[in-house]
Amino acid sequence: MQIIRTVEDMRCFVKTAKKNEKTIGFVPTMGYLHEGHVSLMTHAKEENDCVVVCVFVNPLQFNDTKDLDVYPRDETHDVTVCKNIGVDVLFMPPVSEIYPQAMGITMTLQKRIGVLCDRTRPGHFSGVLTVLSKLFHITEPTRVYFGLKDAQQVAVVDLLIQDLHFDTILRRIETVREADGLAKSSRNVNLTPEERTMAPTIYCALKEAVQQMKQGIKTKQEVMQLVETKIEVETTGTIDYIEILSYPELEEVSELKGTLIVACAVNFSKARLIDNIIMTCNEE
Amino acid sequence: MQIIRTVEDMRCFVKTAKKNEKTIGFVPTMGYLHEGHVSLMTHAKEENDCVVVCVFVNPLQFNDTKDLDVYPRDETHDVTVCKNIGVDVLFMPPVSEIYPQAMGITMTLQKRIGVLCDRTRPGHFSGVLTVLSKLFHITEPTRVYFGLKDAQQVAVVDLLIQDLHFDTILRRIETVREADGLAKSSRNVNLTPEERTMAPTIYCALKEAVQQMKQGIKTKQEVMQLVETKIEVETTGTIDYIEILSYPELEEVSELKGTLIVACAVNFSKARLIDNIIMTCNEE
Repeated sequence: MQIIRTVEDMRCFVKTAKKNEKTIGFVPTMGYLHEGHVSLMTHAKEENDCVVVCVFVNPLQFNDTKDLDVYPRDETHDVTVCKNIGVDVLFMPPVSEIYPQAMGITMTLQKRIGVLCDRTRPGHFSGVLTVLSKLFHITEPTRVYFGLKDAQQVAVVDLLIQDLHFDTILRRIETVREADGLAKSSRNVNLTPEERTMAPTIYCALKEAVQQMKQGIKTKQEVMQLVETKIEVETTGTIDYIEILSYPELEEVSELKGTLIVACAVNFSKARLIDNIIMTCNEE
Repeated sequence: MQIIRTVEDMRCFVKTAKKNEKTIGFVPTMGYLHEGHVSLMTHAKEENDCVVVCVFVNPLQFNDTKDLDVYPRDETHDVTVCKNIGVDVLFMPPVSEIYPQAMGITMTLQKRIGVLCDRTRPGHFSGVLTVLSKLFHITEPTRVYFGLKDAQQVAVVDLLIQDLHFDTILRRIETVREADGLAKSSRNVNLTPEERTMAPTIYCALKEAVQQMKQGIKTKQEVMQLVETKIEVETTGTIDYIEILSYPELEEVSELKGTLIVACAVNFSKARLIDNIIMTCNEE
């Protein structure tokens, strides 16, 4: 496995790969790799001639510089994970390679925001768009891999690719879960033992919501109430949001029709957990 | 010469060219091709294996829809010009190919604006950034060609390529001039015969300014005054702006040092003319 730290060397690798007509699967991450990332890499490996993983903690997508300072990093661990999977290139540029100068161009979203996690992270997705545009230009991926656990990010990347005509295929990868259904996340270690036993309730509640939606008897409000009650009764967590929206447009729906996302965020004492299910309601 | 009207067909051409390791020179235009465009195409032809010219009147860069409606178009003429030069592909997509849906992403500039033509065309360069991002993704150019007559556009494209790490080379092509020095422009036909005889004064004044700047005796204010007086005395035009700025940063300078642009815009009865010279002052 090659470890590359400069844009120039990365471009050089890409040029050679393209010349040899090799497809490139690209997995952009902020490091501290866990099973969710491994799933993205495994899919990328199956579907492409070579796999490029990026580990880059993007300062532009942090609203709070304190958050950026404490963001967990473990380069040795990340290198081992990538090697074990058989990644071809681990791209770990310093900030100065990706942001050699103060940005003079800002990319902002008019769609797919103002809901879900964007409510509490204004500007976050603007930073995501910018860094992904740069990384896509540097790695020229045939396919890019994102996990559906952050479903809003997937929706935003989908818009980026469509709106600016990026020539890459977006692969949306299913959320990886623990045996009891809890979505894998590096934040799970911040749950107390008691909270850890309660946390699978989130996914249970979402599954029940989906069942109710498929039956088509309850209204959107009733389904959201069901999720809310279950989480409030069965956990000590505080609900940040429960939303049912069209997907990937993330627009308000009056009826439970078409492809929808039911998503929630729950705050525990030291961990904020998010989860969602995307499903299609029967359309008559 | 191939005339291509869809993104899909354009991508297909590009893929084949890349596979055959051919370099692509790209000339984005809004059509109504004149000698300035011909110069861009000729340079592109000399420096690349194949040349793609785009004729697309970008609605997003017009502040005024009335302007868009009356923008001159002559497809038959444009086809002939491109054929004569030996262009490989003329890409003429309908608006629906480039903007299949309302944009959900906006690109805005924080640098290189608020001066020169941007003063009177707010939002214009935002639309330019957007359409060029799309076109660069569709045509994957090795080199892109822009004329220095619109020096601010060149500066903005330079920033786009740097800031978002586009993998293309910006070629800045010298302004093409009439025998008497007047910069070629499709707007020159809107000058009255009397105005046409006066118009070369603009370039004369700029050249005098450059001479003064190289001598290093006069201040910026004095040099600007010299240009202003000459144009006011020798023409019936009204000065929109005369500016001396750093180039390509387009920042205010207190001293006449480094690479600078001296630029002006002059309104005649039915034509607004712009011109500029970029020069380097001796640095001690």
